[in-house]
Amino acid sequence: MLNFSKCVQEMRTSEIRDLMSVATNPNIISFAGGMPNNDLFPVEEIDEIYNTLDDKVKKIGFQYAPTPGYPPLIESVKEYLRAKELPVDTNDLIITSGSLQAINIIAKLFVNPGDTVITESPCFIGGTSAFKSYQSKIVGIPLDADGIIMNDLKTAMDNDAKNAKLIYLSPYFHNPAGIVYSKERKNELLNYLQGKEIVLLEDDPYNELYFDESYKELTIPMKTIQPEPVPICYTGSFSKILGPGMRLGWLLASPEIINKAQLAKQSMDACSSTFTQVLADQFLRQGKLQPYLERLRAAYSKRMKIMNDCLKENMPTETKWVVPKGGFYIWINLPEHIDALEVLKISMDKGAIFVIGKTFDPNGVKNNCLRLSFSHTPEGLIEKGVKIIAEAVKAKL
Amino acid sequence: MLNFSKCVQEMRTSEIRDLMSVATNPNIISFAGGMPNNDLFPVEEIDEIYNTLDDKVKKIGFQYAPTPGYPPLIESVKEYLRAKELPVDTNDLIITSGSLQAINIIAKLFVNPGDTVITESPCFIGGTSAFKSYQSKIVGIPLDADGIIMNDLKTAMDNDAKNAKLIYLSPYFHNPAGIVYSKERKNELLNYLQGKEIVLLEDDPYNELYFDESYKELTIPMKTIQPEPVPICYTGSFSKILGPGMRLGWLLASPEIINKAQLAKQSMDACSSTFTQVLADQFLRQGKLQPYLERLRAAYSKRMKIMNDCLKENMPTETKWVVPKGGFYIWINLPEHIDALEVLKISMDKGAIFVIGKTFDPNGVKNNCLRLSFSHTPEGLIEKGVKIIAEAVKAKL
Repeated sequence: MLNFSKCVQEMRTSEIRDLMSVATNPNIISFAGGMPNNDLFPVEEIDEIYNTLDDKVKKIGFQYAPTPGYPPLIESVKEYLRAKELPVDTNDLIITSGSLQAINIIAKLFVNPGDTVITESPCFIGGTSAFKSYQSKIVGIPLDADGIIMNDLKTAMDNDAKNAKLIYLSPYFHNPAGIVYSKERKNELLNYLQGKEIVLLEDDPYNELYFDESYKELTIPMKTIQPEPVPICYTGSFSKILGPGMRLGWLLASPEIINKAQLAKQSMDACSSTFTQVLADQFLRQGKLQPYLERLRAAYSKRMKIMNDCLKENMPTETKWVVPKGGFYIWINLPEHIDALEVLKISMDKGAIFVIGKTFDPNGVKNNCLRLSFSHTPEGLIEKGVKIIAEAVKAKL
Repeated sequence: MLNFSKCVQEMRTSEIRDLMSVATNPNIISFAGGMPNNDLFPVEEIDEIYNTLDDKVKKIGFQYAPTPGYPPLIESVKEYLRAKELPVDTNDLIITSGSLQAINIIAKLFVNPGDTVITESPCFIGGTSAFKSYQSKIVGIPLDADGIIMNDLKTAMDNDAKNAKLIYLSPYFHNPAGIVYSKERKNELLNYLQGKEIVLLEDDPYNELYFDESYKELTIPMKTIQPEPVPICYTGSFSKILGPGMRLGWLLASPEIINKAQLAKQSMDACSSTFTQVLADQFLRQGKLQPYLERLRAAYSKRMKIMNDCLKENMPTETKWVVPKGGFYIWINLPEHIDALEVLKISMDKGAIFVIGKTFDPNGVKNNCLRLSFSHTPEGLIEKGVKIIAEAVKAKL
């Protein structure tokens, strides 16, 4: 009898959530969750910070923060981004409740019901669900190993996506595709977008998680290019460099956009947790981030290698994947005729789970892919789990 | 050149935000901010909790929580609400990023652009800004000392607000009006709403802050009445009973509504801070809330008395206010011809600020009122500040 609004009809349950409940079964080896490993969190560092906090500052942590963020944290995030040559002095910054909130805010600012948003395909499901919650039409453009496929983008922008308001990209250690954009592809993309009436949302939560110093230059954001070829909204997050439980991210964009973003955030949650903002500020300010990142990169790189070696050994030759240079994911392409859901069913019976490709397809169709996260699974179980999945794939060949 | 969405046009800067920046001036006595007092936060209790947390639980605090909330916190909030005879077993509960997020979610679920929402007038500005951000039309119904004025509500629902989807009320120690609904008014309201196709959003963040044990029975939520005369969404918050910096609230509603609310939240911020959820859970679980509340009630009651006595002594007889039985606010009615903004200008020059009535009028018109918060101002400055304001009022008589 309830008369729900139109946007409710666009909401759908995420398969990841369903899998997460399976994943709490200790007998299941899960490659499903795209989350950091609990044992890698900087618990000692945060303990030290908490226990040496000035009492006055601690009390500030219990209080409302200004909507744009706890001022010292805004400064320390700016300092951190300045070192990456991001244009923090000509742009403004707002602290958000994870970068997902930043994506949601940008959708709110630019998407009217029925408007088109261009995304990658596959695409981070937080992005697609945020855009759909504003009743946008999504046009997904396929990726190759170097980034978005330019010919497909051009065709879409000449046709279906002609009046797109927003293009949403996640160029660095993509979730779920595991790729990083090449420098050439970024240039080609920006040249093409220049002069078009579109806003680019550059989502960059995995920026720091490169597996070799030589890959670092691949993580230079498009937002660093000045003057901007198109308006770029750049988002980042503490979720992968401190912990998602802090619920902190940021949005860097022009003062005009950030002013509107503040108003939107004011009606969403008033401010992000001041308590965790105070801790995150000290984490940056006390120089605890860089040594922590070195630990993280080594740990995730090691896990990726274990998974990749095991995949090479066990996966049938008909399957393809790009070896990740950073991030949390290996994205496996199966032959077209194989339905990842069928593979999942067999694999789940044998005790290993992952997320099927369809989940990340903005149109919910393409399903011959699977996402394996190597970030969260206990290291010693990766081999056993991959073998189960490889057997399941073979059974469907 | 940016092509913002339609809802951006509904966003306006809140005067409270502007006043907050004035309020950081240490020479200004501020009655503007509706926030708890920093010196009353339970810092010692949280220190004790943090430092005795199990390491495994602490790590959970760094991780994503399930979208509906950290499961132990859901249980402990249910336990807390069960003691108030709220129907937690036939309803579902979701943890939100402050009760403001719960209000925003309910707006998302029920409001299409152009739909009507009924609010009180004056109304909590977080509520009006959330509804306006979904392009709703707001019909504000005046309050008297016992609650919403039934004749005005009936007239509105026969005319302007005939097809209203939602009625938003804050019946307990209202922000800004400082009143609490009488039992009779609640009954009259529910009898009238019964059978109408409307959802009642009962917002209750100040529930615990009654100033005398005899007022406690006034805080019994309408949600406790079973069966529900209309669908009731009940929201509450940790902001006033632990600290707003935790950014934690809750929404109690039917399983059908909570299921949709989860999907909405999933695209907003994925989950609320797990870190603060872990702390809030222990705060409830270890029985630290009740003794803390006794301290709070005594402190705020004392502040209210200082302010009220000083108002009685200094305000001209043409001004009226209801002496609050709880909460943070005294709402002063000036004679119709006085513009509160003119009073504010004089008062600010002399060193005291407050929020003008217009801010809380959903239509942004009525301005012969002013909100004085007694919660945040240092106790020793209340008298001096009230005298400045009283002089400013007299100057405009």
